[in-house]
Amino acid sequence: MGGDFAPLEAVKGLQLFINQPHKAEGIFCIGDEAVVKPLLESFNILNDVHLVHAPEVIGYHEHPTKALKEKQRSSIAIGFHLLATGKIDAFISAGNTGAMLVGAMFTIKAIEGIIRPTIGTIIPKTDGSTGLILDAGLNADCKPEHLNQFAILGSLYAQNILGIASPKVGLINVGEEEGKGNILTQATYPLLKENKQINFAGNVEGRDLFTDKADVVVCDGFTGNIILKLAESLYDVAVLRNLQDEYFNRFHYQIYGGTPVLGVAKPVIIGHGISSDIAFLNMVLLAEKMIETDVCGKMKASFASL
Amino acid sequence: MGGDFAPLEAVKGLQLFINQPHKAEGIFCIGDEAVVKPLLESFNILNDVHLVHAPEVIGYHEHPTKALKEKQRSSIAIGFHLLATGKIDAFISAGNTGAMLVGAMFTIKAIEGIIRPTIGTIIPKTDGSTGLILDAGLNADCKPEHLNQFAILGSLYAQNILGIASPKVGLINVGEEEGKGNILTQATYPLLKENKQINFAGNVEGRDLFTDKADVVVCDGFTGNIILKLAESLYDVAVLRNLQDEYFNRFHYQIYGGTPVLGVAKPVIIGHGISSDIAFLNMVLLAEKMIETDVCGKMKASFASL
Repeated sequence: MGGDFAPLEAVKGLQLFINQPHKAEGIFCIGDEAVVKPLLESFNILNDVHLVHAPEVIGYHEHPTKALKEKQRSSIAIGFHLLATGKIDAFISAGNTGAMLVGAMFTIKAIEGIIRPTIGTIIPKTDGSTGLILDAGLNADCKPEHLNQFAILGSLYAQNILGIASPKVGLINVGEEEGKGNILTQATYPLLKENKQINFAGNVEGRDLFTDKADVVVCDGFTGNIILKLAESLYDVAVLRNLQDEYFNRFHYQIYGGTPVLGVAKPVIIGHGISSDIAFLNMVLLAEKMIETDVCGKMKASFASL
Repeated sequence: MGGDFAPLEAVKGLQLFINQPHKAEGIFCIGDEAVVKPLLESFNILNDVHLVHAPEVIGYHEHPTKALKEKQRSSIAIGFHLLATGKIDAFISAGNTGAMLVGAMFTIKAIEGIIRPTIGTIIPKTDGSTGLILDAGLNADCKPEHLNQFAILGSLYAQNILGIASPKVGLINVGEEEGKGNILTQATYPLLKENKQINFAGNVEGRDLFTDKADVVVCDGFTGNIILKLAESLYDVAVLRNLQDEYFNRFHYQIYGGTPVLGVAKPVIIGHGISSDIAFLNMVLLAEKMIETDVCGKMKASFASL
């Protein structure tokens, strides 16, 4: 029920997913039966999904914690309940972002040893590859140890989901040399340098974000969110300038579909409010990949070994 | 003598300036006479400039404060001396950035009342207008009162140099609503809202940077530097993608030429190390405009009234 065009685009995205080869053993569709059932019927996928009735909806402007607590029969609350109890293996929604985060943190919970779960976003590189930036906005103010953990989470995500064997990790900074930066990055650099679980490539400047200097770049959520939204707007700029360019097309949010919450025990993916069918399709594909690779299990193992 | 292609590009830029209508009453060229004089002669502008001999050069990797103190006969030291004593009205160099900043701070000095001078950079807007972002990297860590002062300096710069009558000031942030942000922006918002010397337009997100939502955007120098370098790299991306686009061409550093130090008593402009003739031309034009509009005097008056 989440997203500006819910549930139509979600159903259309599911149809796209179902009509292509896939490995998912069961697809659960959580929403208001009266609205969703006829839609699933008209798209001819009613028999391909388990429809779970959720009569309540958490609106965009509702207080996340309060709404999640009070609306136990909303699609978000039910989704987290199914995920927590093992009925489903991944949960996706384009609904209230705050409620999704609260559910991820308090129903699914952070992996032991992780101080702050984070969200990452994809960065298209000019060489055709794909990088990851994190935190992309969940933790506006960060400490060095947070960024050091993001580096591990991002590396595991890049290995498992982006298929990069030994991802180069960069620290977003204002200069190349060690010692450059603000208080946060100056204190973070030595931690990343000593971190044996990552392949640290040093500082990465604004001009390096689209190059192959690093596959995974870490920063506080304030910086990451500015970069994420600036990068997304490049797609709009290209459209405005009437540029038909493959590279700039890759900045369209629907390519990556949604934002995974990293550092929580199970796959949770948050979609854009404006999610289209393609965005939903890509989120389901991402969920499938997160399940298949057991990336959350690998994160757990990685932090257990520390 | 500053810049990777010094002094050739500087002399070529001066020639471009001299051969167009201009108001500058005197042009001082500070550098090693043995190198610069033949160049000025070959470009036929020896009689148009006052050549000031500077036998020493501060290298790129020298320690700014130490070099400036020890190399009193370097072009940077002599330039600041001429500016401080009123022999010249503006000083430009593409040399050691640190030495330029140290000279600006300690020889020219901050305007009374200004806690931290800042550097700004131009942002091309998709509507054809030009915006300003500051701090662009001088002050990596900032306090709310710094950003509040940057807002005033930026507004005066936009009015006088960019010709925007009542520049809209935005606070770079992760969300639109008041209350959003990291500790710094949450504390800065109320200051900007109460600031009667500016036309505050609220928070500005990464996606708004190239739109007309604000003419002047303020942030800490860490964030600003990441944005500046990311924006500059868009020109390179466009070239790489073989896009011949007027808008992306405007991201080329040489369009704005150099970075003015704002909040010091007199015009100081720092050029890119890779400055070309066009970049030097644009820096001289900017210096001319800063002198003509007395933007530094207006900044002084503005802070005297607080």
